Amino acid sequence: MKAVVLLSGGLDSATALAVARAAGCTSYCMSFAYGQRHSIELERAAQVAHKLGAAEHRVVTIDLRAFGASALTADIPVPKDRPEMESIPITYVPARNTIFLAFALGWAEVLGARAIYLGINALDYSGYPDCRPEYLRAYQSLADLATRQAVEGDRVELRAPLLHLSKAEIISLGTELGVDYTTTLSCYDPDAAGLACGHCDSCRLRARGFEAAGIPDPTQYRPSEPS
Amino acid sequence: MKAVVLLSGGLDSATALAVARAAGCTSYCMSFAYGQRHSIELERAAQVAHKLGAAEHRVVTIDLRAFGASALTADIPVPKDRPEMESIPITYVPARNTIFLAFALGWAEVLGARAIYLGINALDYSGYPDCRPEYLRAYQSLADLATRQAVEGDRVELRAPLLHLSKAEIISLGTELGVDYTTTLSCYDPDAAGLACGHCDSCRLRARGFEAAGIPDPTQYRPSEPS
Repeated sequence: MKAVVLLSGGLDSATALAVARAAGCTSYCMSFAYGQRHSIELERAAQVAHKLGAAEHRVVTIDLRAFGASALTADIPVPKDRPEMESIPITYVPARNTIFLAFALGWAEVLGARAIYLGINALDYSGYPDCRPEYLRAYQSLADLATRQAVEGDRVELRAPLLHLSKAEIISLGTELGVDYTTTLSCYDPDAAGLACGHCDSCRLRARGFEAAGIPDPTQYRPSEPS
Repeated sequence: MKAVVLLSGGLDSATALAVARAAGCTSYCMSFAYGQRHSIELERAAQVAHKLGAAEHRVVTIDLRAFGASALTADIPVPKDRPEMESIPITYVPARNTIFLAFALGWAEVLGARAIYLGINALDYSGYPDCRPEYLRAYQSLADLATRQAVEGDRVELRAPLLHLSKAEIISLGTELGVDYTTTLSCYDPDAAGLACGHCDSCRLRARGFEAAGIPDPTQYRPSEPS
């Protein structure tokens, strides 16, 4: 079975790809050049796709800077060492997953793929509204009506295998499935060489995950900046 | 109230913009350069936005040719004089409205807009799955969960004022509201000067609409090609 896999170059989507492979899917990976400050993640996505045997990796260019308003796409600093990670932070990108899934749906239809894998997670996450189970259910209802494929009875299933896993569980699962996490990059604010900052929400969730999983953290961090 | 208006340069979306204006909305128009063969429609969209007093008109570049498979984006001829207009034709662009609405949702959130207008129509249309009332309802459910704005209680309403109107009713309504249809371009296969072919589904629906409305058709057609 063909599957479209949304791949960011980060830890979660790499694990989702490994799950798709383990389920016997032929994977068509899709990444987005969306004006993100951490565009080095796209190189990592290509490496991850190659290592995990994807049939194809396609990078779609879209310009989310068209509406800005996120620390990931506009000229707004990435928050570091936020005391409270529950509220929706400025790294939230308006409608990002809604847009990514829409493209995935279009490609799935053209490919005749019957599943879309995505690495969203509702436990150790940054409070983004478009990572919640109810969001995913609503998108499935939409997908069931949106395309010619759906109208003709061929359902595309949205699969979020990490939705209810902790970061530690995701890391354990991926390690079992052969993901090489040295390739993945989670940091929202890496330097040009791809070294992680260690202080953004994403770095902190990742580091805690490796610690809780009891697996050595392969992340390459850059030296701390004086604060 | 601010509203995002999806504007293609065609007859329907121009009418939707006029309805938004009549409802007292400040309109932020969004068009897409999506690799369409009829990209001259973007110039028309800009003219329509200007004439109907939009606060802003933004063209977002996305590349739907990334997955092709439509006569509007790939190297496939536009069907002319199709005997049966009920089945989903090759001019269907996979997930197009799903993608457009996702971008509109993101921009609405950044603007603080409370409505998104779109010119979809389920009567005199080409059978596209993403123009149906049930599709729109499913998207509303998704929009109610997808954004920070929604989570914080500020709903964005998807408004499709033409959904249940015939093409003739749309033309009558727009004429009443001051739409100048000479500016709009409906043809899927116009020539470089913007002259309509007169034979694609879109041209035929439009021509029948003017006739049924008893309003002179201002469309500029090019001379018939020998078949």
